[in-house]
Amino acid sequence: MRLATLDDGTRDGRLIVVSPDGKHCAPAPVKTLQEALENWTAVEAKLRAVTTFPDPLPPAKLLAPLPRAWQWLDGSVYLSHGRLMDKVLGHEPFKPDWPLMYQGQSDTFYAPLASVPVADEALGIDFEGEFGILTDAVPMGTSAAEAGKHIRLLVQINDWSLRRLAGPEMKSGFGWIQAKPPCGMAPFAVTPDELGAAWRNFRPALNLRVHWNGKQFGDASGEPMAYGFHELIAHAARTRTLVAGTVIGSGTVSNDNFREVGSSCIAERRGIELVDTGAAKTEFMKYGDTVRMEAHLPDGRAPFGVLEQKVVRP
Amino acid sequence: MRLATLDDGTRDGRLIVVSPDGKHCAPAPVKTLQEALENWTAVEAKLRAVTTFPDPLPPAKLLAPLPRAWQWLDGSVYLSHGRLMDKVLGHEPFKPDWPLMYQGQSDTFYAPLASVPVADEALGIDFEGEFGILTDAVPMGTSAAEAGKHIRLLVQINDWSLRRLAGPEMKSGFGWIQAKPPCGMAPFAVTPDELGAAWRNFRPALNLRVHWNGKQFGDASGEPMAYGFHELIAHAARTRTLVAGTVIGSGTVSNDNFREVGSSCIAERRGIELVDTGAAKTEFMKYGDTVRMEAHLPDGRAPFGVLEQKVVRP
Repeated sequence: MRLATLDDGTRDGRLIVVSPDGKHCAPAPVKTLQEALENWTAVEAKLRAVTTFPDPLPPAKLLAPLPRAWQWLDGSVYLSHGRLMDKVLGHEPFKPDWPLMYQGQSDTFYAPLASVPVADEALGIDFEGEFGILTDAVPMGTSAAEAGKHIRLLVQINDWSLRRLAGPEMKSGFGWIQAKPPCGMAPFAVTPDELGAAWRNFRPALNLRVHWNGKQFGDASGEPMAYGFHELIAHAARTRTLVAGTVIGSGTVSNDNFREVGSSCIAERRGIELVDTGAAKTEFMKYGDTVRMEAHLPDGRAPFGVLEQKVVRP
Repeated sequence: MRLATLDDGTRDGRLIVVSPDGKHCAPAPVKTLQEALENWTAVEAKLRAVTTFPDPLPPAKLLAPLPRAWQWLDGSVYLSHGRLMDKVLGHEPFKPDWPLMYQGQSDTFYAPLASVPVADEALGIDFEGEFGILTDAVPMGTSAAEAGKHIRLLVQINDWSLRRLAGPEMKSGFGWIQAKPPCGMAPFAVTPDELGAAWRNFRPALNLRVHWNGKQFGDASGEPMAYGFHELIAHAARTRTLVAGTVIGSGTVSNDNFREVGSSCIAERRGIELVDTGAAKTEFMKYGDTVRMEAHLPDGRAPFGVLEQKVVRP
């Protein structure tokens, strides 16, 4: 089952169920995705009972499936990326025995086709292609073994980043504020069964194809997460209850063979250049640049639909 | 004007206006504080027009004035505290030319008289007495000079902290997740005029009296913030829009003469002990412990009311 949210002029939009071919839709029996997640066990069957799709799907009128969330926690669990970023940012390699995670701005997730206002072109504008999950309510202390059942929907995320600000904020130990403006989401939130065998060990084993200004930039697999999403939930819930509608991200998708498959963010490519040649050559994004992200299954299907966002002057 | 939120069984509660003597209340003309902040210029006059208070105020039925927020950003701008914590946590002193700030969990603010479930007594359970503000919507790029007018209400906050987890999370550079479960709020959100001359340079010049298990622990002034709240807003809004209802905190209140006035968190006292005697002697909180926080004006009035929370086993 795939869900999306239509712009109806309200902040949370109007939940719709998307047809299997991704071209039609029907109003959902609850108004918002937040409401659905708060009552998932009761609502899921009603959503699945929607099997006729009278309306053409209007891609330009879709918001993020969850246009705002009460909590957004982003992991960083692709080790090939983490090792490289330590070098890029000039940090000592830091290898905790738990998944890296930061608390992000949750009050806005940009629409899949949004023009995204960025404060300043000089700040090192970058995208980060990620996978994510939406949970129902998770009690404090939930174990990884129990956490998997709280994964209700999967999403695809673009975590906008301002790299010139990221290093100094990290050095403070307080994490990121200015370096992490709101993220975007691809149009469809999907139940795990939509991925079939490509959802395994609570990891999305599908490739995230990234294009920057129309040119392919990366096509890395989401599978090699050092921690599965069930473990990210357990980490987050160790000392807090997670409210329904909590969004948890994987961090930028990255593979060991990034020289062959490419990267899901510019910073990683710059890191590779730095390691290989002593200098980063690829520039960051400029106003007017676009990034397109589409995750695809081995059979070619793109369960989350297409995210394509443009950087604009505020 | 002082506002509070009554527990009516919903997550956002029912907004009430509090009488000048703090003993009575009246229903507000909008249902929630979030709704009021989203329409403040239209709603403020209606709230101020409430001048009869038919109902006795029931302290035990009050939620946090804003029981959940779309964004919670906590500063750390009392330098006497920051310098000490660098030593306690074994960090290199870090002196950025901007205010330290982290993104915190915003989906829950505990009620002023809540019993607060904490995951594990061994994690170094600590309180942090703070001041905070609630903003209306703040456009990206708002300057400090323009930011002050977005401060609509002032609040008093208890930022629960788990100190055994704080150092390792800081070292990751990603900021805090497990070390920072939800905060609590004192019962009343107040307009800045309630503080009279004690609201100056966008700083709350009143003392925060902290009791731990009935014994006075600190009575430090909120005034010596290295950055005023207008500057904290400008810092936060540099690369993002702040939605109405954003909460921004000062960080734990601390004064240079903390050996005389005491501290607003246990970590600071332990830091002083470490510096003075080579070892921290004061233990962290145990299950059953209480912390009471009440900020008072020179004339003795306590504009935010009393926060008194108990640590309990989950």
